[in-house]
Amino acid sequence: MLSLDKVFDAQQVLKKIIRETNVVRAYGIAPECELYLKPENLQITGSFKVRGSAYKIAMLSEEEKARGVIACSAGNHAQGVALAATKNGIRSLICLPDTAPISKVEATKGYGADVCLVEGCYDDAYQKALELKEKEGYTFVHPFDDENVIAGQGTIALEILNDLDNIDAIVVPIGGGGLISGIAYTVKQIRPSVKVYGVQAAGAPSMYNSVKDGGRECLSAVSTVADGIAVKQPGENTYELVKQYVDEIALVSDDEVASAILALIEKQKMIAEGAGAAAVAAVMFDKFDLRDKRVVAVVSGGNIDVTSLSRVIDRGLLNSGRSSSLLIELIDKPGQLKDISRIIADCGGNVTGVHYEKGNTESVNGCFLRIDMETRNYDHVKLITESLRSEGFKIV
Amino acid sequence: MLSLDKVFDAQQVLKKIIRETNVVRAYGIAPECELYLKPENLQITGSFKVRGSAYKIAMLSEEEKARGVIACSAGNHAQGVALAATKNGIRSLICLPDTAPISKVEATKGYGADVCLVEGCYDDAYQKALELKEKEGYTFVHPFDDENVIAGQGTIALEILNDLDNIDAIVVPIGGGGLISGIAYTVKQIRPSVKVYGVQAAGAPSMYNSVKDGGRECLSAVSTVADGIAVKQPGENTYELVKQYVDEIALVSDDEVASAILALIEKQKMIAEGAGAAAVAAVMFDKFDLRDKRVVAVVSGGNIDVTSLSRVIDRGLLNSGRSSSLLIELIDKPGQLKDISRIIADCGGNVTGVHYEKGNTESVNGCFLRIDMETRNYDHVKLITESLRSEGFKIV
Repeated sequence: MLSLDKVFDAQQVLKKIIRETNVVRAYGIAPECELYLKPENLQITGSFKVRGSAYKIAMLSEEEKARGVIACSAGNHAQGVALAATKNGIRSLICLPDTAPISKVEATKGYGADVCLVEGCYDDAYQKALELKEKEGYTFVHPFDDENVIAGQGTIALEILNDLDNIDAIVVPIGGGGLISGIAYTVKQIRPSVKVYGVQAAGAPSMYNSVKDGGRECLSAVSTVADGIAVKQPGENTYELVKQYVDEIALVSDDEVASAILALIEKQKMIAEGAGAAAVAAVMFDKFDLRDKRVVAVVSGGNIDVTSLSRVIDRGLLNSGRSSSLLIELIDKPGQLKDISRIIADCGGNVTGVHYEKGNTESVNGCFLRIDMETRNYDHVKLITESLRSEGFKIV
Repeated sequence: MLSLDKVFDAQQVLKKIIRETNVVRAYGIAPECELYLKPENLQITGSFKVRGSAYKIAMLSEEEKARGVIACSAGNHAQGVALAATKNGIRSLICLPDTAPISKVEATKGYGADVCLVEGCYDDAYQKALELKEKEGYTFVHPFDDENVIAGQGTIALEILNDLDNIDAIVVPIGGGGLISGIAYTVKQIRPSVKVYGVQAAGAPSMYNSVKDGGRECLSAVSTVADGIAVKQPGENTYELVKQYVDEIALVSDDEVASAILALIEKQKMIAEGAGAAAVAAVMFDKFDLRDKRVVAVVSGGNIDVTSLSRVIDRGLLNSGRSSSLLIELIDKPGQLKDISRIIADCGGNVTGVHYEKGNTESVNGCFLRIDMETRNYDHVKLITESLRSEGFKIV
């Protein structure tokens, strides 16, 4: 049974394993409320997951420990279990789909786990893990639907309440629901007036739909930049806890998550993964009634692939007018590029790409010119566009 | 006169203004030493600069305060002075070149300064600031060559020594030399056995050259991704302090700085600007004898423009084989792209760009195909290249 005693016990057990991640004030991200962040992206292994795994593992019997643990994950849970097992001096085997990024495989090995690469997707790896559990006697560590795992995640709430007085609300991302179950349960026992809000990705609304419709649902597919919370079905325990203790759940779009990642980089000098930025996105885009409130957003993890990060930043630059691309229709004659370059340079735009394209122009001698530029903002793009138009160029 | 008392006094004065930035252990960045970071990128205003400015301003006479302060900067110093003045309840005017990024102008205004945009470059803004100082009676706040500013930066050393025992070395970036002067002076008074190493950008080696040649030198030009330390000439005070107290200075290349920025993102979930990552770069690339040593690298700031960050990441991805670009010479006939796409897909490469280019191929019917891909690492690129070659494609 989940109990507050268990959460306090987890706090003691975890002391030697996890890092302190102090709540920090975030300025300029959501000016209408007093926003703080609980930066679990700075937690060891780069996410909160190590808390639940480490408490779960510490609570195993000596006999279970001797048999070792097994888990299945393509992400943060793998690293959490690996480190937690190593710190407890026991063996861990992690099943990963062979499509998992090399960086995650290496990180998992780096924390001391044996890795079993399984051909196929997550579900194949999961089946393999269950099979190995039966055959070899490993103890299975579930990523969220386990009361000790939930109690471990609940320690985050104890730390938040210890760091900060008079909190009005805590905003938490939801994947399978382990994190928010632990936090909501703990908060509502200690300070029930504090609201606990959950956030899911619009492309993976499993808990949102389940709570709305009054029963656990399983999505047929999930798709979101917040891969850490792309979970098809809530857990049994977590579903019940969320239903009972979470005040409200909202959805955020991929673009909102990308904007939150950018805001955390620019304002907080901090890297969050998609799931890690989901709660901040919900605050930024007013998904809950938080005006003038003291709010803590849990930044659950920071393990974003640099390739994805690069895409998120590019998208963010486009969305904010700091990069832009113009398609100009022109008559194919000498001097056109010279004139266009001059106009852009005079306006302070920085050309980063030029492509000629034949195409269905009005004149047979026409062509299209695509110009990629670094710009300052939308007004700057407008200035350049208008200057080009005023000298007779046709922007498509 | 600079004195240890002054540094301790600064520590008291700054308590109400600055943030605590605790030293954190950094794993996986430089495995051969025990590396810690002093994360001044997480300092309020995003850099250490606020320390020196705030102490300088607090030490002004009431009459000087009443006249307000003036400073000239396109970067972190501007924001530091602005915030420090506002916190002391006095007026500040910051001269910026009109080429400064909008984001920096907005940030400076956001901290409560008046901003004077000066046509031209940094030097023009500097002249304008001196002119306004004379005409209007403002007190000028120098970015580094001032003993109170230096004492303010020295508080970083007190915090490091308080956070961590048995340090062998502290590694510090050098621009004008204010930061390292304060740190080196303080450390050598309190614990002289601790080495203090300085790091400059190879494209702006003003202090490095000056110390090597035994006299202050002025570079005619500077060019580096670490714009925060692109300073043409050391200060008079800082030059003397560095000569006396700094054990060694090394240079880092732009590519080394870019790799350090990437490593901080991936391993530490932390954004550093170029100057901020310079000390980490020096540790990563073995510029000093640090094997098995306990080392603190000062991450001096995090105010990197997202456009620059995007470029740094792209460069880092290329450098590590996580993105790549192949130029394939082919005979212009149907089905070529289909075959190439199939081979790349079978190898697990992800195509992100395709460009046909006419060019000086062997055959008149030939053309070049440029393929941009996301890849896993160099071995993966090699696998794809060899698979293409084995099916008869010619990689240029």
